[in-house]
Amino acid sequence: MSSAQPHPLSCPASLTRRDGLTLSRIVAGMWRMQEWQLTAQQRLRLIEQCLELGVSSFDHADIYGDYGVEALFGEALAMQPGLRQRMQLVSKCGIKLVNAARPAHTIQHYDTSASHISASVEQSLRNLGTDHLDLLLIHRPDPLMDFDVIADTFHALRQAGKVRHFGVSNFSRHQFECLNRRITLSTNQVEFSPLHVDPMFDQTFDGLQDLGVAPMIWSPLAGGRLFSNNDAAGQRVRAAIEQVAAELQQPFASVVFAWIMQLPSRPIPLTGTGRISAIAEAVQATRFSLSRSQWFTILRAARGHEVA
Amino acid sequence: MSSAQPHPLSCPASLTRRDGLTLSRIVAGMWRMQEWQLTAQQRLRLIEQCLELGVSSFDHADIYGDYGVEALFGEALAMQPGLRQRMQLVSKCGIKLVNAARPAHTIQHYDTSASHISASVEQSLRNLGTDHLDLLLIHRPDPLMDFDVIADTFHALRQAGKVRHFGVSNFSRHQFECLNRRITLSTNQVEFSPLHVDPMFDQTFDGLQDLGVAPMIWSPLAGGRLFSNNDAAGQRVRAAIEQVAAELQQPFASVVFAWIMQLPSRPIPLTGTGRISAIAEAVQATRFSLSRSQWFTILRAARGHEVA
Amino acid sequence: MSSAQPHPLSCPASLTRRDGLTLSRIVAGMWRMQEWQLTAQQRLRLIEQCLELGVSSFDHADIYGDYGVEALFGEALAMQPGLRQRMQLVSKCGIKLVNAARPAHTIQHYDTSASHISASVEQSLRNLGTDHLDLLLIHRPDPLMDFDVIADTFHALRQAGKVRHFGVSNFSRHQFECLNRRITLSTNQVEFSPLHVDPMFDQTFDGLQDLGVAPMIWSPLAGGRLFSNNDAAGQRVRAAIEQVAAELQQPFASVVFAWIMQLPSRPIPLTGTGRISAIAEAVQATRFSLSRSQWFTILRAARGHEVA
Repeated sequence: MSSAQPHPLSCPASLTRRDGLTLSRIVAGMWRMQEWQLTAQQRLRLIEQCLELGVSSFDHADIYGDYGVEALFGEALAMQPGLRQRMQLVSKCGIKLVNAARPAHTIQHYDTSASHISASVEQSLRNLGTDHLDLLLIHRPDPLMDFDVIADTFHALRQAGKVRHFGVSNFSRHQFECLNRRITLSTNQVEFSPLHVDPMFDQTFDGLQDLGVAPMIWSPLAGGRLFSNNDAAGQRVRAAIEQVAAELQQPFASVVFAWIMQLPSRPIPLTGTGRISAIAEAVQATRFSLSRSQWFTILRAARGHEVA
Repeated sequence: MSSAQPHPLSCPASLTRRDGLTLSRIVAGMWRMQEWQLTAQQRLRLIEQCLELGVSSFDHADIYGDYGVEALFGEALAMQPGLRQRMQLVSKCGIKLVNAARPAHTIQHYDTSASHISASVEQSLRNLGTDHLDLLLIHRPDPLMDFDVIADTFHALRQAGKVRHFGVSNFSRHQFECLNRRITLSTNQVEFSPLHVDPMFDQTFDGLQDLGVAPMIWSPLAGGRLFSNNDAAGQRVRAAIEQVAAELQQPFASVVFAWIMQLPSRPIPLTGTGRISAIAEAVQATRFSLSRSQWFTILRAARGHEVA
Repeated sequence: MSSAQPHPLSCPASLTRRDGLTLSRIVAGMWRMQEWQLTAQQRLRLIEQCLELGVSSFDHADIYGDYGVEALFGEALAMQPGLRQRMQLVSKCGIKLVNAARPAHTIQHYDTSASHISASVEQSLRNLGTDHLDLLLIHRPDPLMDFDVIADTFHALRQAGKVRHFGVSNFSRHQFECLNRRITLSTNQVEFSPLHVDPMFDQTFDGLQDLGVAPMIWSPLAGGRLFSNNDAAGQRVRAAIEQVAAELQQPFASVVFAWIMQLPSRPIPLTGTGRISAIAEAVQATRFSLSRSQWFTILRAARGHEVA
């Protein structure tokens, strides 16, 4: 990080689409919160530190941490209920895990029926201790999903004040557009990193840019593999990022987040960490950008070949 | 089949699209009629038995049985001409086979020109002994097809009262939409079975659901390979279907038809058999449905992996 | 070539889209002009011979010949400035090569920013010695391209009278449509030949036909590999083309150009040669067409299998 910062680090906000939802430019992903093994007090402190950094959006799913993360978060939030109005809560539904917490499930499967979506939202609201979600996502595209049924269910949830905005996750461009024709979707949360560049070439990002919708990005650091992966691609990408990081005098992770946010679809990356210093490195990425040469240096390493 | 049936088995009807064509929920495929080696009287009896079961739609193509099936069907129908008004006749055109019946053909190829489509329809009408087709399909997407020419030809055939509804077969989602923008299409008849699940993941079914159009399904039993295939996938899928069949107390084939019809695009499967008992097993599938767990048990076997 | 020609060979004109740009049905590609090692006088003579043949459209790019071809062409054109109004000039931008002519470039990359597009057009106009381009193409799809920015830049270039029509090159169907929703595009220039048939099956040609837009085709002779390639596919395709050429009494290359132009999207092929006799063989292809059997004979050879 360059030594002199003119202002304290503060994450800007970002619209996911015109007249749509505002999230913080960096979203705090809670996926692994259970693994962080924090006391309720420590969890509250982490939430407060995020908010102090301007990271006001928190990403959940019903299933995270064996169906347990939402309640861990809710427990902390209940210690300072006033924080709720300063944050945006995102959750997901649609996957049914085989899990001790759900003994009725005999096979991992999807359920995008009206009854399951509604029941899952009710449970998320109870777990989080809130009366509404800011954003609800269908977690995975379900071969049995009925676009009309999902749209009707979303409309009813909005009508009831329980969910303000809707989106999907891991949907193809075409699947997104099918549902978006029935109800305005605010985002498609997809996997993307220098080790997983598919959405840049399979219409996902192009299609969202076309509609003026920002993707959310999960695993922007490839679940940590950017730091540890020692196969050819891993080494090549790491070396390229290190080179750019040295040129820009910025942290390695910040360069990755900046590389992602520079895409014209304006992706909104999630963090996956419980360390506030690592979240700050993501926020730091909102302060600088790469030159086109630097950007393509990382792309070339990611693909293993020059652009044509 | 469960022992006590409250009502005699009767196949319901199904719209292929809003304000569109009504077919029976199960369609009797005539592809292999020549192989069944039936007398004209036996063919008539099979047609009557289908109609008694509520299976009122019969699927043909100009080329089936060395260009011979339509005439075999027409010969039987001529013995009871009154049956025509109780059935829907589907045929296809656009493939030119190298065949003794067509000595002019020197290479297997496609022809979607206006003159070939019109001539093929005239021949189908003569063979079937009818003055109109209820549904005409372009059999395969032709690299030389001109969407405007096909649409104009379809319009003219409808104007002349020779064909009432139009569709395609084996078209991609995008190809379907290109032609559907020019003339309303009633269906896309595609291959689908637990051994060929591509249409569920390549936009075909999603795209049809999006437009409110039901696909027709050929080879829903994978041309019999579901019963006989002994590679890993075959064994895995067969075991999963057997498990569900045992749970539901339904015939193996009925479970496959039900698995298919449960998709939100409301697929209309074809049978491929001349045995009325086997056609009845398909109709039986309209009477029950699988639980989501059962449905995903077969999907998992089909793909060889759990959903993500 | 059949011995008796009723009229002198003359290339017809072709609209790239309704109310759009008119190009000659065959476009003279200047990609390799530098390699032809012609004097300015010889270059002028080649241009004049093209125009005499009715080949009035000349295809350039900023980068061709180490950023040098446009200036070679401009030098010749300056000797007969009156020719400008009888021709259509096409150029491209968006690729930045590592090249002695551009010492600032440190990595091969794309640049579709407003400033680079505008600067590249200005340079093309200077090099060609003209006040306008008839057609400007974005050379490659750029992961960093902002559809709105490109459309705005195109609008401004048209407003300023510097470029009359716009298009893209090597774009997917979806990418074409994203930009075409913002500014009317006249073409998508893609690679296609009997040795590279992807655009026929990946929605590119279908999508353009759907919109009434003609593709331009680069490397219709597969960069000469149609003549020299001795792998299985090369031998198979060459034999099929030779057979059709013998049947039609037409030159080998003419058959290839006719095979391409027969597609319903009405492709406009480029030549890649400095020999006027070879350009004439392309023009000759506008005078005849293949039977469907002949057309599919070449397709079968190209794919290595019969159509289904």
